[in-house]
Amino acid sequence: MTDMVSLTLDEVQALAVRVLTANGLSEAHAQANATVMRDCQRDECHSHGLYRLIMCVKTLRAGKVVPDAVPEVFDHAPGVVRVDAKSGFSLLALEAGLPMFIEKAKASGTAALAINNCFHFSALWPEVERLAEEGLAALAMNPSHAWVAPAGGNAPLFGTNPLAFAWPRAEGHPFVFDFATSAMARGDIELYRRAGKPLPENTGVDRQGSPTTDAAAVLDGAMLPFGGHKGSALSLMIELLAGPLIGDLTSVESMAFDEGAEATPFHGELLIAFDPARFAGGDAASHLARADALLNAIVGQGARLPGERRHAARERTFASGHVEIPRKLYEDIEALMP
Amino acid sequence: MTDMVSLTLDEVQALAVRVLTANGLSEAHAQANATVMRDCQRDECHSHGLYRLIMCVKTLRAGKVVPDAVPEVFDHAPGVVRVDAKSGFSLLALEAGLPMFIEKAKASGTAALAINNCFHFSALWPEVERLAEEGLAALAMNPSHAWVAPAGGNAPLFGTNPLAFAWPRAEGHPFVFDFATSAMARGDIELYRRAGKPLPENTGVDRQGSPTTDAAAVLDGAMLPFGGHKGSALSLMIELLAGPLIGDLTSVESMAFDEGAEATPFHGELLIAFDPARFAGGDAASHLARADALLNAIVGQGARLPGERRHAARERTFASGHVEIPRKLYEDIEALMP
Repeated sequence: MTDMVSLTLDEVQALAVRVLTANGLSEAHAQANATVMRDCQRDECHSHGLYRLIMCVKTLRAGKVVPDAVPEVFDHAPGVVRVDAKSGFSLLALEAGLPMFIEKAKASGTAALAINNCFHFSALWPEVERLAEEGLAALAMNPSHAWVAPAGGNAPLFGTNPLAFAWPRAEGHPFVFDFATSAMARGDIELYRRAGKPLPENTGVDRQGSPTTDAAAVLDGAMLPFGGHKGSALSLMIELLAGPLIGDLTSVESMAFDEGAEATPFHGELLIAFDPARFAGGDAASHLARADALLNAIVGQGARLPGERRHAARERTFASGHVEIPRKLYEDIEALMP
Repeated sequence: MTDMVSLTLDEVQALAVRVLTANGLSEAHAQANATVMRDCQRDECHSHGLYRLIMCVKTLRAGKVVPDAVPEVFDHAPGVVRVDAKSGFSLLALEAGLPMFIEKAKASGTAALAINNCFHFSALWPEVERLAEEGLAALAMNPSHAWVAPAGGNAPLFGTNPLAFAWPRAEGHPFVFDFATSAMARGDIELYRRAGKPLPENTGVDRQGSPTTDAAAVLDGAMLPFGGHKGSALSLMIELLAGPLIGDLTSVESMAFDEGAEATPFHGELLIAFDPARFAGGDAASHLARADALLNAIVGQGARLPGERRHAARERTFASGHVEIPRKLYEDIEALMP
């Protein structure tokens, strides 16, 4: 007996929808969340695949998320779309806001989409990839829970604050990156803790603010940003832009709102889009070709382009027609049925 | 005899204007460039103060920059201002574009300013600080010359690609950061070379792509981005947004254009502004107060906020009424008079 379970992408989606709706989530939210879990599973982003069902159901059971929230879209300003997620999950709010956001970006050259009052649990890369498939360059960012100390500091103030970017290539997949501004993802530190392995240097500090490679001590203390004071500055920028700028919570405020429920963070998200065709005014093809030349030169010198691993995984999945998840995870998911 | 020369800020400005105009730069460009050198000298950013006159005059003498270029401003799209610098220096082009840029950002909530065809030699922080003084949050970025290899690569493809950000605080100076996405500024590596000091690890690679701490070997080989693959991704984003998006050169293309003249890089610059008041729709004060609480909490735990050192220097300068520069530098500057 194999210890892996094989599922088609349709089965992944159906399983996620079944578990989510059985736990009280509306069909529309369940489909939106399940689609992203399916896409992450397809690309072997295991941390954001079906595994996320566990966190998602935990959040539902904590009772703070509104399971049937209907997001409301506002034409806030010529360059700004706002979506009030009404304390629901973020993904349905994103879907609701996308058409107006894309329209504004193409009309104005650049536009912003602010999602407010949402419970966030998704990876950002599928969101910006989708915009790149519309021909737009796009950024996405959000705070999370206060787990990360600023460079030179000793106590948590920032979230893991991911930054994602996508660029529409003239040929092939969009170029996409998505990284946490913490030195390591919180989930990965958890894996080090379970495995009893020491962390790399500069991953975090203990509760006293002293550097440590002990994963449990870092989870109890504070993570550190990547790249020293530069990564710390970037993380702070994300707090400000995807927090107070859009009138939503910082990571400290999100954590206070959580009141120890350990639900997925409640805050906002900011997306920014640029239309290369609108910027170029008729000459976009040659500029996109120059961008492709740069991207190809990176691969040409043997360096890896962010996202390459995901695309290779996606091709494997399409070729085999299915994904595999550990039987233990499958059983844990089945156990989420009430 | 002291080996420092003391100058008032007016004298700094006058000296820079005198040297630049004597080398053929128009009065308008000379004033724009001198103002930023004065402000950098005031804040003890020595690398972008009067020291920059040497590079600026070298660029003028290389004959590629148009010394009396009159920038042309285009209302390119509802969210985009373009300024064609007409192969002149960037700062006068920025000044020309600022009023329409600020107007668009306040009207639309967000806007972009693309400066094209400019010779760049300035620090970015004064540019975003100026926007924050207008109440806007702002980002600025540009490629430079191809000196930096991508993470995992072995040959230069990226510029030092600075990123600057400013946030308007409810009280006190705007919060401003400005960092190179290279692990170290090129000028600092030059200082290590002169001093014969070994570089920190991960600063660069030699011409064969092997890691080295030898500054001369890195200057001959390639610098590396800060923060591994994350900093590398950020640097690449800057190449794409401040290059092909705005129809301007990448760092590789800028270096090819230079043809070995060692002039300041020729490329574009992208600024993005967000209006917190427009985003907030009447409730900006409370959101800016929450941002201030976050910024104060960073200082409160003993971490340093980017820009603090500059503000302290600025206060020292205002208190003393003058700045000091090494006599050797002063003499080098006087020697720039034709």
